[in-house]
Amino acid sequence: MYGDRVRNPALLDRIVCADDAAMLIRDGMTVGMSGFTRAGEAKAVPMALAARARQSPLSITLITGASLGNDLDKTLAEAHVLARRLPFQSDPALRKAINAGEVMFVDQHLSETVELLRTRQLGPIDVAVIEAVAITEQGGIVPTTSVGNSATFSILAEKVIIEINLSQSDMLEGLHDIYIPTHRPTRMPIPVVAPESRVGLPFIPIDPDKIAAIVITEKLDSSSTILPPDDETRAIAGHLSEFLEHEVKAGRLTNSLQPLQAGIGTIANAVLHGLIETPFHNLKMYSEVLQDSTFDLFDAGKLDFASGSSITLSAEKYRSVMPDFARYKSRLILRPQEISNHPEVVRRLGIICINTALEFDLYGNVNSTHVAGTQMMNGIGGSGDFARNGYLSIFVTKATAKDGRISSVVPMASHVDHNEHDVDILVTEFGLADLRGLAPRERAPLIIANCAHPDYRDELADYFRRAVARGGHTPHVLEEALSWHVRLKETGSMR
Amino acid sequence: MYGDRVRNPALLDRIVCADDAAMLIRDGMTVGMSGFTRAGEAKAVPMALAARARQSPLSITLITGASLGNDLDKTLAEAHVLARRLPFQSDPALRKAINAGEVMFVDQHLSETVELLRTRQLGPIDVAVIEAVAITEQGGIVPTTSVGNSATFSILAEKVIIEINLSQSDMLEGLHDIYIPTHRPTRMPIPVVAPESRVGLPFIPIDPDKIAAIVITEKLDSSSTILPPDDETRAIAGHLSEFLEHEVKAGRLTNSLQPLQAGIGTIANAVLHGLIETPFHNLKMYSEVLQDSTFDLFDAGKLDFASGSSITLSAEKYRSVMPDFARYKSRLILRPQEISNHPEVVRRLGIICINTALEFDLYGNVNSTHVAGTQMMNGIGGSGDFARNGYLSIFVTKATAKDGRISSVVPMASHVDHNEHDVDILVTEFGLADLRGLAPRERAPLIIANCAHPDYRDELADYFRRAVARGGHTPHVLEEALSWHVRLKETGSMR
Ligand SMILES: CC(C)(COP(=O)(O)OP(=O)(O)OC[C@H]1O[C@@H](n2cnc3c(N)ncnc32)[C@H](O)[C@@H]1OP(=O)(O)O)[C@@H](O)C(=O)NCCC(=O)NCCS
Ligand SMILES: CC(C)(COP(=O)(O)OP(=O)(O)OC[C@H]1O[C@@H](n2cnc3c(N)ncnc32)[C@H](O)[C@@H]1OP(=O)(O)O)[C@@H](O)C(=O)NCCC(=O)NCCS
Repeated sequence: MYGDRVRNPALLDRIVCADDAAMLIRDGMTVGMSGFTRAGEAKAVPMALAARARQSPLSITLITGASLGNDLDKTLAEAHVLARRLPFQSDPALRKAINAGEVMFVDQHLSETVELLRTRQLGPIDVAVIEAVAITEQGGIVPTTSVGNSATFSILAEKVIIEINLSQSDMLEGLHDIYIPTHRPTRMPIPVVAPESRVGLPFIPIDPDKIAAIVITEKLDSSSTILPPDDETRAIAGHLSEFLEHEVKAGRLTNSLQPLQAGIGTIANAVLHGLIETPFHNLKMYSEVLQDSTFDLFDAGKLDFASGSSITLSAEKYRSVMPDFARYKSRLILRPQEISNHPEVVRRLGIICINTALEFDLYGNVNSTHVAGTQMMNGIGGSGDFARNGYLSIFVTKATAKDGRISSVVPMASHVDHNEHDVDILVTEFGLADLRGLAPRERAPLIIANCAHPDYRDELADYFRRAVARGGHTPHVLEEALSWHVRLKETGSMR
Repeated sequence: MYGDRVRNPALLDRIVCADDAAMLIRDGMTVGMSGFTRAGEAKAVPMALAARARQSPLSITLITGASLGNDLDKTLAEAHVLARRLPFQSDPALRKAINAGEVMFVDQHLSETVELLRTRQLGPIDVAVIEAVAITEQGGIVPTTSVGNSATFSILAEKVIIEINLSQSDMLEGLHDIYIPTHRPTRMPIPVVAPESRVGLPFIPIDPDKIAAIVITEKLDSSSTILPPDDETRAIAGHLSEFLEHEVKAGRLTNSLQPLQAGIGTIANAVLHGLIETPFHNLKMYSEVLQDSTFDLFDAGKLDFASGSSITLSAEKYRSVMPDFARYKSRLILRPQEISNHPEVVRRLGIICINTALEFDLYGNVNSTHVAGTQMMNGIGGSGDFARNGYLSIFVTKATAKDGRISSVVPMASHVDHNEHDVDILVTEFGLADLRGLAPRERAPLIIANCAHPDYRDELADYFRRAVARGGHTPHVLEEALSWHVRLKETGSMR
């Protein structure tokens, strides 16, 4: 039994139940788990761990690729298993614990975590828990719907627990490209020179002796929670497509554009989806998470190739894509998030990066993480890896949130994840501001006129006028710079 | 005459006076000039241009490598020649014009400007003005004490003016390594794999027909304005050396550390100088500007190799180094700033990056550019290229400025150039805060205790306590977050 999934016969007798495997994880340990944007996370062992913690309390440092599905972060947070969590999450219950100071959350660029582990600036990893499609004859681990940080976790961990997930299609084998950069300071160039470059192995190579337990599961990945395009996201997509067409006309881009990256969430997905209606063709993606829109673009004949670190689909898309996976597989690669997001590769390929902002200010500083400067939403994720190094760094957002009570365009960003040096283009449903080559004083009028919601334009313009009267390269009325956020806190609205 | 400097005989009759050469620059043009941290700037033509502008007004977009010496930015600004200036400056008069909104300053990562020019997102460059030691037989340009953006300016410009500077030693020939990345999306890896990698040509290869004028000059580079180490900078250096020794003891670094980068200015210079008194040896630098300390470290037998984009020395150091340049030359390379600062190379080599902050906040967000959030100081320079991608990202500053009236540790940074994701270590004369792997709430007490000036500690601790009471991942009392800066503006002091 399971011989096609656990192909090294010596490993078959390490198959245990999740509770037993979870016993390898002890209080105070640092644990690396697979999982990236709700795809390919270990599912059974963390659940068993949470169940045990409810009886006898324990807490760990949990490092993953990115966010987990199946309410795992919620379950672990509520069982008080998480003393420390990195590098990303997107769960409301965990978010609450983080903002209450109960879980120490370390918000990192997604390409960086493994560099810190490898140089022992973080860690060491005591146990890795990795979901796999199969274990090869030599003990190589074949990941499922995400690679994330799984390769480095497995390589560095003292012990590895594998969850063989029978619900994950064995068609996934051969999809992954596992390349681990060499040690510094004698590292060689990362040989990825195109989204379709295959430079590594289709499995994670580790010493099979480290595999301490194997658990058989069959729980599905959670579906993505993105919403379908609406009028506003369609308008955002429209402005962006128009801008890109303008760049083609100006001779700066061809109709195949440059490789595309699109961030997580509804808006980024809608923007990519919007490319179906454009003259662009033979597109390629070099991104992080591949969402529904990637497959929509394949189906529309627009996309030639997509490289990512995970595949996260809506329930409906999953049902149409997975049975037909052979049709897509030769045009897909999943890589470690260190490589999908690597500054070296992002800069080399000249990626067009599209990420979502919570808010941005008059001068183009972007907040992706902190509501009102203090409350963590999800984390910076890969947005910094891409935005700093891309050919074009684009941030999209709806002009308002919470039924118009919050303006996404504010006098001063209440937290800065991407500063004015890193942001080229801002888009809301009202329009697009092209900030390239502009000084702060030139940016503000453009952002107010093109991006802000009409209800907030006059007050923004008034702020800017009074700020300019005080002078400075980046004019501000300091005592009012955060007053919109203060008002929101006090009255529930920025109006 | 000048046949040893202008070795292509066909070019000899293009030698003209600076006034005539400057006539090639017309109102409204975009001009690229050599010059990086007061080294190797074109000297005669911009002066002639300023003189002309005083008679008949004209204004241009001026792009350089970084800051210019010989009061050029001052002279050009005062003659109202500068409509637009990028990507860096450090001149008090120009700064004043920028902050008054008279000059549109575009503050950029120093590795990025030429990417924007190459893809025509900026530019085009009408005229390049490049200081050179010599022009080769084939028309290749041999730069002087800096490379900066000179190579790409020359390659992209419609016309090139060369200033042959007779005061620049012909010993400089052979020092430069000119490598230009290929076009995207088909770019190949940049082959630099060590500070000593030579991957390009010792001259800038251009079509000699583009050389429209040659001017002979002999004005010296300006000396650097750095101050000698004082008690405080010595204390900063001491804390940092102690930290690095601790990293060696922990087995995370060897006594040769990782390649070093140190930012501009007095403090960074003092910190590097401080390494003379440590057990470290066989060090290498992969930096931007090579200051006095680089040569002090060579002389002390501590440094094996240094790669940079310019050499900027004090008058005294210049007098001792230049006559003896042969002794250093084989251990030095000057590269285009795109390569000295390239995220790909910085990440690959695993650089230890030491840059200076104006201020930082309780959570490790760093302001390098804007006094009180509004007034431009110099620009971000290369600090972002390095800090985002290095092995260790260290920011140093004195704990107070202006005789203690300004605390460099503030509740919230008034402008964010490097955010909490990019900052590992903070150092002032009082001590060092190691932020690696810490959540914001863990960072604050460490920064207050180790880095803040004792006079400000209680008030910072009080702010933090009240902020935590309100909750949030990154707690703030929003309506007070910038109150220290407001107080400074109103009373002249943060006390
Ligand atoms: C910024 C981010 C939170 C937006 O998420 P999204 O789902 O695309 O966008 P939405 O507009 O639906 O916003 C999500 C929530 O934030 C709220 N929000 C949006 N702007 C806000 C603002 N300025 N202030 C407060 N809340 C805001 C929305 O109301 C919504 O709340 P809800 O969950 O209660 O409905 C998300 O993109 C993110 O986490 N980004 C950072 C990481 C990243 O960029 N990764 C991509 C790299 S590959
Ligand atoms: C930040 C920076 C301005 C510090 O310069 P420095 O010469 O090393 O440091 P100093 O302490 O002498 O400070 C310079 C000036 O800023 C003032 N200053 C320092 N901290 C300040 C603060 N928090 N608020 C207001 N002014 C401050 C000092 O008083 C001094 O003023 P002065 O010129 O009137 O004497 C400089 O390093 C810089 O421009 N950095 C950004 C670019 C960069 O990092 N490049 C390196 C990449 S290679």
